[in-house]
Amino acid sequence: MKTHTLLMPLDMHLHLRDGVMLENIAPLSAYSYSGALIMPNLVPPVNSLEDVKAYKARIMAAVPNDYFEPYMTLFYKNYEKAFLESVADSILAIKLYPAGITTNSEGGVSSFNIEEMRPTLEAMSNLKIPLCIHGETDGFVMDREAEFMRIYELLAINFPKLTIIMEHITTKEAVAMLDKYENLYATITVHHLILTLDDVVGGMMKPHLFCKPIAKRPEDLEALLSVALEAHPKVMFGSDSAPHPQHKKESCGCAAGVFSAPISLQLLCEVFEKYGKLENLQAFVSDNAQNIYGICPEFKEVTLQKRPFVVPNHYAGVVPMYAGETIKWAIESVD
Amino acid sequence: MKTHTLLMPLDMHLHLRDGVMLENIAPLSAYSYSGALIMPNLVPPVNSLEDVKAYKARIMAAVPNDYFEPYMTLFYKNYEKAFLESVADSILAIKLYPAGITTNSEGGVSSFNIEEMRPTLEAMSNLKIPLCIHGETDGFVMDREAEFMRIYELLAINFPKLTIIMEHITTKEAVAMLDKYENLYATITVHHLILTLDDVVGGMMKPHLFCKPIAKRPEDLEALLSVALEAHPKVMFGSDSAPHPQHKKESCGCAAGVFSAPISLQLLCEVFEKYGKLENLQAFVSDNAQNIYGICPEFKEVTLQKRPFVVPNHYAGVVPMYAGETIKWAIESVD
Repeated sequence: MKTHTLLMPLDMHLHLRDGVMLENIAPLSAYSYSGALIMPNLVPPVNSLEDVKAYKARIMAAVPNDYFEPYMTLFYKNYEKAFLESVADSILAIKLYPAGITTNSEGGVSSFNIEEMRPTLEAMSNLKIPLCIHGETDGFVMDREAEFMRIYELLAINFPKLTIIMEHITTKEAVAMLDKYENLYATITVHHLILTLDDVVGGMMKPHLFCKPIAKRPEDLEALLSVALEAHPKVMFGSDSAPHPQHKKESCGCAAGVFSAPISLQLLCEVFEKYGKLENLQAFVSDNAQNIYGICPEFKEVTLQKRPFVVPNHYAGVVPMYAGETIKWAIESVD
Repeated sequence: MKTHTLLMPLDMHLHLRDGVMLENIAPLSAYSYSGALIMPNLVPPVNSLEDVKAYKARIMAAVPNDYFEPYMTLFYKNYEKAFLESVADSILAIKLYPAGITTNSEGGVSSFNIEEMRPTLEAMSNLKIPLCIHGETDGFVMDREAEFMRIYELLAINFPKLTIIMEHITTKEAVAMLDKYENLYATITVHHLILTLDDVVGGMMKPHLFCKPIAKRPEDLEALLSVALEAHPKVMFGSDSAPHPQHKKESCGCAAGVFSAPISLQLLCEVFEKYGKLENLQAFVSDNAQNIYGICPEFKEVTLQKRPFVVPNHYAGVVPMYAGETIKWAIESVD
């Protein structure tokens, strides 16, 4: 049977939430990944050194072994330089949300006034703290990411030494930015390497494939695949896996978020194999992130096997992507 | 309090289904409308004279009085001329579905071969039976209707005396066809005069606003409003109201269809008043349809009042559009 081994897989965009949900789902990522960049959009958001340390401790307590590193982030606001110096060693990045743009983002940035942001962003630049951004405007749902490109450009030009990560990109416009500005990087989810809006609302409406940014057009999918499959060095994997209880997904108003954590590595194998690019997956799912963030993750060797795997209907009350469906790869062993 | 009276309102595109569902929901349309064009996509589809008569009888049995006319349709397939002659007096139109494009459309047309369709369409043209079409291709969800324009053009050019109704149009491309071909007409739903894709998946995902064709872009909404509010003489109201049990909407795969029947007239008042065009609603919701189809509906006078109305959470297990929300107009009296 065909197998494929990955070393130190990394998920550079992960939502673990808190409390019982955290306890239930953190082990699923810890099982197959060496580490993950943990998003800070809790209620209230993670925005102090104490918060970061306490949240990291809760995550560590929830995972069953030492072979998983939660790389911590801070929720962006305009911070003092002295504070950033004090927190720099405890975080890997700072995550910026436009206010109200997605789950628990109410305290985010409401206007991109470069001069007001300058002291914070210059301090981050000097301290080499990357800025991760959920890049959407409040415009029409299919245009939000493309409209945000002017903000990325403004930031990339004004802060040329700041590492800026365009998170979970979904459009050809975002892909085009990678080769235009040296300091712009991107994460891509596995579901955005598979889905278009057609899969979400083209047949039946699928709440478990609904996320922000929403999956876009076929030409956008093609652009995303073109850089992911080649493991473009400025692109890395970030699942954006986000758990919601079933009743918040299958109801009269469904919350945004695809829960892919337990099957993301398997799906990545499926996608990369489908296009004959399995040899590039190692770079996409680990090496590029190590280079971009300058991290050395815990050793982990994950071997996947090409055999049918029926995705469980639930993981502790959370419905995963492709629940009940058969995917083509399974995890064989983790060392 | 502000009131507005409408005479003989007509819903020229309505799904009543069958059995208990029919019994539960038909009275809701019969209450406020003089008549409605009843869609034939039952399982199996309505495609014989016996089916038409029996279905009409079941509808009449379900409505509590005589003041409602169900205008019957036949499910399009290639019919013999003699059959069409025999059925012409019992139907108002024939409804064409591309195969598999929406609910219960599996038996529809799978290729638009004009020469194969010619005998049927010429007989319909001679018998003055209008052809109603669900105009979508099987392409990308946001492009399906625009892509179908070439089929409308093909039919309009080949059968210049055939009245062709573009059903529930949702795009600026379809609006543009109205003034391009003399024999093309259109229905517009009330939800497509209110929603864009933003309302369906831009915030929370809203299964009760999910329908086919899906609501499109802001510029499409603007084009639809421009012809509806002016009561363009080739445009008429058709709700496309389609009931599904709640568990088929709020689940891991939500069926397409907005259930607007009990509130459609009220919402039409709200939309037309909002844009200062209440005086044109009579034409949009009745007069145009009377002219296009050459029908004289049962007398009915419906008076609506501008006062807050909280939409019920359910009508016999079916969740309506705007369930639990407050709309601005209510039905005051029906005579």
